[in-house]
Amino acid sequence: MATLEQVLLSVDETLEQSLSRWESFLKIPSVSTDPAYKADCKTAAQWLVDTLNELGFDATMRETPGHPMVVAHYISNDRTNAIGKHVPHILFYGHYDVQPPEPLEEWNTPPFEPTRIVGDDGNERMYARGSADDKGQLLTFIEAVRAMINASFTLNVNMSLLFEGEEESGSPSLDAFLAQNIKELSHDVALVCDTGMWNETTPAITTRLRGMVHDEIIITGPSIDLHSGLYGGAAINPIRVLTKILGDMHDANGKVMIDGFYDGVKDLPADTKSSWDKLNLSHEEFLGGVGLSHPAGETSYTMLEQIWSRPTADVNGILGGYTGEGTKTVIPSKASAKLSFRLVGEQDPQKILDGFRAFVKARLPADCSVEFLSDGGASPALEVAESNPSLKVAAGALKDEFGKDPVLMGCGGSIPIVGAFKDVLGMDTILVGFGLADDAIHSPNEKYDINSFHKGIRSWVRILDALGNSDEE
Amino acid sequence: MATLEQVLLSVDETLEQSLSRWESFLKIPSVSTDPAYKADCKTAAQWLVDTLNELGFDATMRETPGHPMVVAHYISNDRTNAIGKHVPHILFYGHYDVQPPEPLEEWNTPPFEPTRIVGDDGNERMYARGSADDKGQLLTFIEAVRAMINASFTLNVNMSLLFEGEEESGSPSLDAFLAQNIKELSHDVALVCDTGMWNETTPAITTRLRGMVHDEIIITGPSIDLHSGLYGGAAINPIRVLTKILGDMHDANGKVMIDGFYDGVKDLPADTKSSWDKLNLSHEEFLGGVGLSHPAGETSYTMLEQIWSRPTADVNGILGGYTGEGTKTVIPSKASAKLSFRLVGEQDPQKILDGFRAFVKARLPADCSVEFLSDGGASPALEVAESNPSLKVAAGALKDEFGKDPVLMGCGGSIPIVGAFKDVLGMDTILVGFGLADDAIHSPNEKYDINSFHKGIRSWVRILDALGNSDEE
Repeated sequence: MATLEQVLLSVDETLEQSLSRWESFLKIPSVSTDPAYKADCKTAAQWLVDTLNELGFDATMRETPGHPMVVAHYISNDRTNAIGKHVPHILFYGHYDVQPPEPLEEWNTPPFEPTRIVGDDGNERMYARGSADDKGQLLTFIEAVRAMINASFTLNVNMSLLFEGEEESGSPSLDAFLAQNIKELSHDVALVCDTGMWNETTPAITTRLRGMVHDEIIITGPSIDLHSGLYGGAAINPIRVLTKILGDMHDANGKVMIDGFYDGVKDLPADTKSSWDKLNLSHEEFLGGVGLSHPAGETSYTMLEQIWSRPTADVNGILGGYTGEGTKTVIPSKASAKLSFRLVGEQDPQKILDGFRAFVKARLPADCSVEFLSDGGASPALEVAESNPSLKVAAGALKDEFGKDPVLMGCGGSIPIVGAFKDVLGMDTILVGFGLADDAIHSPNEKYDINSFHKGIRSWVRILDALGNSDEE
Repeated sequence: MATLEQVLLSVDETLEQSLSRWESFLKIPSVSTDPAYKADCKTAAQWLVDTLNELGFDATMRETPGHPMVVAHYISNDRTNAIGKHVPHILFYGHYDVQPPEPLEEWNTPPFEPTRIVGDDGNERMYARGSADDKGQLLTFIEAVRAMINASFTLNVNMSLLFEGEEESGSPSLDAFLAQNIKELSHDVALVCDTGMWNETTPAITTRLRGMVHDEIIITGPSIDLHSGLYGGAAINPIRVLTKILGDMHDANGKVMIDGFYDGVKDLPADTKSSWDKLNLSHEEFLGGVGLSHPAGETSYTMLEQIWSRPTADVNGILGGYTGEGTKTVIPSKASAKLSFRLVGEQDPQKILDGFRAFVKARLPADCSVEFLSDGGASPALEVAESNPSLKVAAGALKDEFGKDPVLMGCGGSIPIVGAFKDVLGMDTILVGFGLADDAIHSPNEKYDINSFHKGIRSWVRILDALGNSDEE
């Protein structure tokens, strides 16, 4: 029976073998959105089944209407540990599918030939599609378990692992699969490795996820496109109507003017705000890389609040009239826009949609009609309480590994799996990840730092150890 | 030597032959925008040259970098008439090219097989591409001249005719051709037959043409498209900026809020306003056919003023972000719009552009840049004074034919030739035409009423007679 330090040492000593296994996993082009890669997705799932069974898991491939799920269990201890405590049972989730690699011509190295490159800063990185999202991240967990099992470390944690092959396709089979397997998958807490660190040296746990609801608006004026000479002035122009309505949606201070929009938005706890302020993230640091320098949200909130704890109303697309080369003097019949609202706190997606639609209708002039097309997809915001016992245990373990407290971050985007675990399985999710802002997930030249991979494995060893020996219930 | 009444009678008696010549002209598919029809354009030009030479004109085809011009002269009397008066020399303009016929599947009869159909209202119409615009209209003039010449009527008018083959392609060769032939083409007054009647029983002369200037605006925020989850709230969204600016361009009463926009806009003379008001054009009558019922322009002006004597600012196209199927949570880097401004009175196109650009720049938030792309095309508004002697003569002749005064109309659109005649040749233009609102020019199933054609010929006989025997100098 090894000590924790011995396990960590073995992680360091066997890193090359871990990297080699990672490379073999990255070579499988498991692109879920393209039917041409269907067999490769199955190969990736089988790779996980084989890997986990070799480690002593009971791993199986489960068919779905789309790509298969992989489910694996490892019962190290039957419900109580040596001192009679309840042994926690965790559910770990990751996804083996990857984004399409296109545009291929922008890759410096082939996307499915993983390549290790030492950068000008001396840091080594693995370049491949999926290196970070999510093959590299999920393997940090499996390699941590491998090290603990190989060292015969006493694992006072029971584990169920769920790997999905459709995350990059919108997870169409997930909710039904969870619902059909509640008893098998519902345990004490879910762990997900698909998020980032605060920066290269500072770990993070993501505790706030904004929700989202979409809408599409189509305004119709004249029944046909009109000549702007013959009709211009007398005929209502739906682009004018649309721009007027959307232009009125924010006031000069960035506040959203839809009635009831802020219902359910809670003030940020003072200590959370204080901890975010202490991060001293400069506007330049966050926005400079994309050519900006001024936070554009509500002026009375800090930049981090604007992206982590405040809701938004963004137009993601707008279209109307003639948009080709040159000019065409048309008054179009229709103009349309796609919007998304990022939600926080207790904001109700349906009420936000209703409020937006009422806002539009109240401003619709004579002769215009409006149509709304919602895809029905909506997710409320999610928060993991900072008092959650598993969160506190994971935070302590990360501090042991990195020498500083993890940042309890928000995430401006949505991670639907977290809502599904909450709603279908009744579990909270602890989001611990080791990605960096420059990993280029979903873009050409995706990479994952070797340091992220290495420290990630070490971190999971510490977290699993801490969960198994925690006083928390 | 026939009397005017005898000439008019011969027009009636030989109408079938006129219709037959019109049909042969319509069968030539002289589409100027499509290089596949280049030879057909030349055939149509040659058809005019042959027709006019047979009538005793000195007609020639003149090459240009594009399709050829046709120029024809008929000197009936060397500078003085029988009573020693100055014989007026007119320049008649028309165009032999036509719009492309597409979409072909929407035509009820083949576009280049002219077909006469009696409608449910008992009126017969000629269906073909170009039947109205402009082959039918220009032939009313030629057939009038034919009748007068064949009857040996004393024509106290000298005539130069100019037919263009690129009007539907933006007249790229016209200005240079006019400039190279000023002496040959510059005479007392220009007559153009390319406009409409007020309605089936009421003739019209178009005396006001709105000018136009274009602009295109591109607003850039982030240097790349951003994920609206990660950046939403903190990153400026150029669609939000664009809709705000364009939405502020009109006030609640339809007034354009650009500084100096109304400089040079004159009040409508009381008698003109009164004559327009007497037309009693209902909102339903003008707007009902395109699904509208409320004039959308400045609330303190009538509908006819809004389209004939008031300027406009219209967005003809807008584009930004994701506009395909479904949703994409993007904050785009750019958003753009194409605008056109219809001008009246003495509005200066350059000052309008400058004013618009200043309006945009004054509202541009931090982190955004703006680019303006103008195609350089601009034309000021044009008016023919109601006191113009030729206008008064033509109005009297039309009253003789129709039994009522012609409406002195405005035209919301631009007719560039009028500006070219003014600027290059120093001539005023009298716009007399016999089109109707439902002629479907530029659309499938273009038609021209047999009555328009017949009354058009008779009207030109009267106008040419009146011009030759006018006391006006």
